[in-house]
Amino acid sequence: MTTLTPSRPVVDLAAIGAAARDAAQVLATLPTGVKNDILDAMAAGLTAQTDEILAANQVDVDAARETGMTDALIDRLTLTPERITDIASAVGTVVGLPDPVGSVEDARRVKNGLEVGRRRVPLGVVAVIFEARPNVTVDISALCLKAGNAVILRGGKEALHSNVALAAAIGQAAESAGAPPAAVQLIADPDRARLNDLLRDREHIDVIVPRGGAGLIDFVTETATIPVIETGWGVCHTFVDVGADLEMAQRIVVNAKTRRPSICNALDTLLVHRSVAPAFLPSISRELAERGVELHAGPDVSGLLDEHAQVKPVGEHDFDTEWLSLRMSVALVDGMDDAIAHIRRHGGGHSEAIVTNSHGNARRFTDEVDAAAVYVNASTQFTDGGEFGLGAEVGISTQKLHARGPMGLHEMTTYKWVVLGDGHIRPL
Amino acid sequence: MTTLTPSRPVVDLAAIGAAARDAAQVLATLPTGVKNDILDAMAAGLTAQTDEILAANQVDVDAARETGMTDALIDRLTLTPERITDIASAVGTVVGLPDPVGSVEDARRVKNGLEVGRRRVPLGVVAVIFEARPNVTVDISALCLKAGNAVILRGGKEALHSNVALAAAIGQAAESAGAPPAAVQLIADPDRARLNDLLRDREHIDVIVPRGGAGLIDFVTETATIPVIETGWGVCHTFVDVGADLEMAQRIVVNAKTRRPSICNALDTLLVHRSVAPAFLPSISRELAERGVELHAGPDVSGLLDEHAQVKPVGEHDFDTEWLSLRMSVALVDGMDDAIAHIRRHGGGHSEAIVTNSHGNARRFTDEVDAAAVYVNASTQFTDGGEFGLGAEVGISTQKLHARGPMGLHEMTTYKWVVLGDGHIRPL
Repeated sequence: MTTLTPSRPVVDLAAIGAAARDAAQVLATLPTGVKNDILDAMAAGLTAQTDEILAANQVDVDAARETGMTDALIDRLTLTPERITDIASAVGTVVGLPDPVGSVEDARRVKNGLEVGRRRVPLGVVAVIFEARPNVTVDISALCLKAGNAVILRGGKEALHSNVALAAAIGQAAESAGAPPAAVQLIADPDRARLNDLLRDREHIDVIVPRGGAGLIDFVTETATIPVIETGWGVCHTFVDVGADLEMAQRIVVNAKTRRPSICNALDTLLVHRSVAPAFLPSISRELAERGVELHAGPDVSGLLDEHAQVKPVGEHDFDTEWLSLRMSVALVDGMDDAIAHIRRHGGGHSEAIVTNSHGNARRFTDEVDAAAVYVNASTQFTDGGEFGLGAEVGISTQKLHARGPMGLHEMTTYKWVVLGDGHIRPL
Repeated sequence: MTTLTPSRPVVDLAAIGAAARDAAQVLATLPTGVKNDILDAMAAGLTAQTDEILAANQVDVDAARETGMTDALIDRLTLTPERITDIASAVGTVVGLPDPVGSVEDARRVKNGLEVGRRRVPLGVVAVIFEARPNVTVDISALCLKAGNAVILRGGKEALHSNVALAAAIGQAAESAGAPPAAVQLIADPDRARLNDLLRDREHIDVIVPRGGAGLIDFVTETATIPVIETGWGVCHTFVDVGADLEMAQRIVVNAKTRRPSICNALDTLLVHRSVAPAFLPSISRELAERGVELHAGPDVSGLLDEHAQVKPVGEHDFDTEWLSLRMSVALVDGMDDAIAHIRRHGGGHSEAIVTNSHGNARRFTDEVDAAAVYVNASTQFTDGGEFGLGAEVGISTQKLHARGPMGLHEMTTYKWVVLGDGHIRPL
């Protein structure tokens, strides 16, 4: 485990890639039992080094307060003994998940007599670039190692000391349990421009996963020549159809917006069928006001809101904004065509929902809306690896190649064709 | 179908992307029967317009002769009535393949009571950038449309007139059978630099597939911000192990090198275990000499070759060269470690083979060699969608994301999570 601390600045990112490639070759063929032992050791290492981790985290938290970071973000950054126990326990969950590596799909003898099959294998070297929350350092490492990959981590500068301490704890523990030294590497260099070489190291790195906001994703897709899986950003909609159960709609909208407003599957834009707006908007806007939600809407909506509603005129870019806070755009639509067209134009391909009692409209919505997850009569906040039965997730992909929606262990693997013959040559 | 002819230069590539996106939305929900009707019409259109296609092809062939193109390349470029019949018949094969769109994987009711499943859907808009052979225009269009995608094609300038005629024939036929107008679009602009905007049109295009040599692939991966599936390039090895059946080895090596030397799964570097080299090299080099193969090798190899062998001293980059011709590098290795290390250093992640009688070595080779296809006792020339049972292929992926090896209809699709509830909200 190479922890590059700020006092030892990164001068040769190619060395990180090459070391990861070597580690990946060892990890690819480790038996499941050894990988689980490594994860168990990582969990134990976290618990054993709780004091060191908390001390490092305090440095980050103090610095964040000095720079005037909001209380909500400071809360995301802060570690406590209980949170470290939770992080260790999440590693234990990954130990319990089935190992996808080695399974063979579509094995068969083809007409030429060859035995052909697709064997599931690790991706190889996975680089993850993420923001704020330090638990990600551990979550991602556990998932990558369980799937047989070497991982290169680069967290946000706000959590730098915390990440170094966490990576040191799990890295030392992993190595003591049989992992190769560069199985987990953390880049502790806060200068984003220094990432350029890493993002173009096609020789050593198989995939880059940016996990964060639109700015990070744009930077990575613009710079990288390595394949990228975009995750985490998305403008999410919920459409309340004519004939919908309005109590159900209110429950779903409130949950999708307020349960956790800062996560990527939270509701950003509420679309309401014009016919039900007079019946729906007063009640939903009252409850949202009580919960501190600020609405951004045009005059057709504003005129129908509860007197306590907090409302601002909708701005030019509001329908393309992922709010990540207690704000929400609202628009009226004339029906399915209009709702689908709005989502097509402004959606981020993440999570989109309809609340309806019409079987036909539910069917049409799931057919025609193009997103990682499409919902009928449920909150978009369910888009999550655990909720979908994947056990845990590395992130939520919003692109179409390789993996879409939550990425679990299976999505951290690829396959190779294994072909067994007995002297077979191909005829002309 | 928008065919942009050279007399109508492309001024607004964004218009192509936007038109393709609209077409993709229609194609995504077409029933299989309608898609098959469109393909049948395309095949009929090719036959009906044979004269126009041959006339256009003659323009390309004449120009190629003037520029001194080799006979082998001119042969690849040339169309005949029989070849047009073969191309139309390949479209018929795609009609007969099962439609992957709409199948649901891993459908289940998860613990929160939601019904969750992954529904297979088209990728959306696929751009394919390819070189010389004009049949690719039709093959790719048929596969993309059958999987419900809109396709943007950009072929090599040598086949420009042929491609315009082929695209016109299939495009008009497709539209007459119910395809949206921009289902197939050909960019008939020979200026590669003009592709930059297309390669960065993340709003409208879902994936770029470069199909050609290393130069094309490097250009696309350097320029594109859209996800890329690299195809077609690879330095392929065959390792002849100690104890191998040398007659079998000779049959496999000769087939892998000479059956079709210009395709990407052809053998580039022969690795021979030092212990069997004195027994193997005289005989294999004699047969390869008879078949016109030129060997590139060091003195340890040269000293063991048949007197008729054509041999040149191995150059600095020869082991990293995809020959695509009747040339081949040869090296001696000391055993499995050495062979695997050589492939790891020089392999292109395409197709790698071992000829062995050792069960353990076969197992180790398939475990430790990281490539799209790994073979035991068979010719690497089997790496092909048809041979692997996929029916047909868009290309052979040499990267690890999304698809590896031959890409058939299934690999031209992705999935969306469809989640059905009854008012479900996510607890805190």
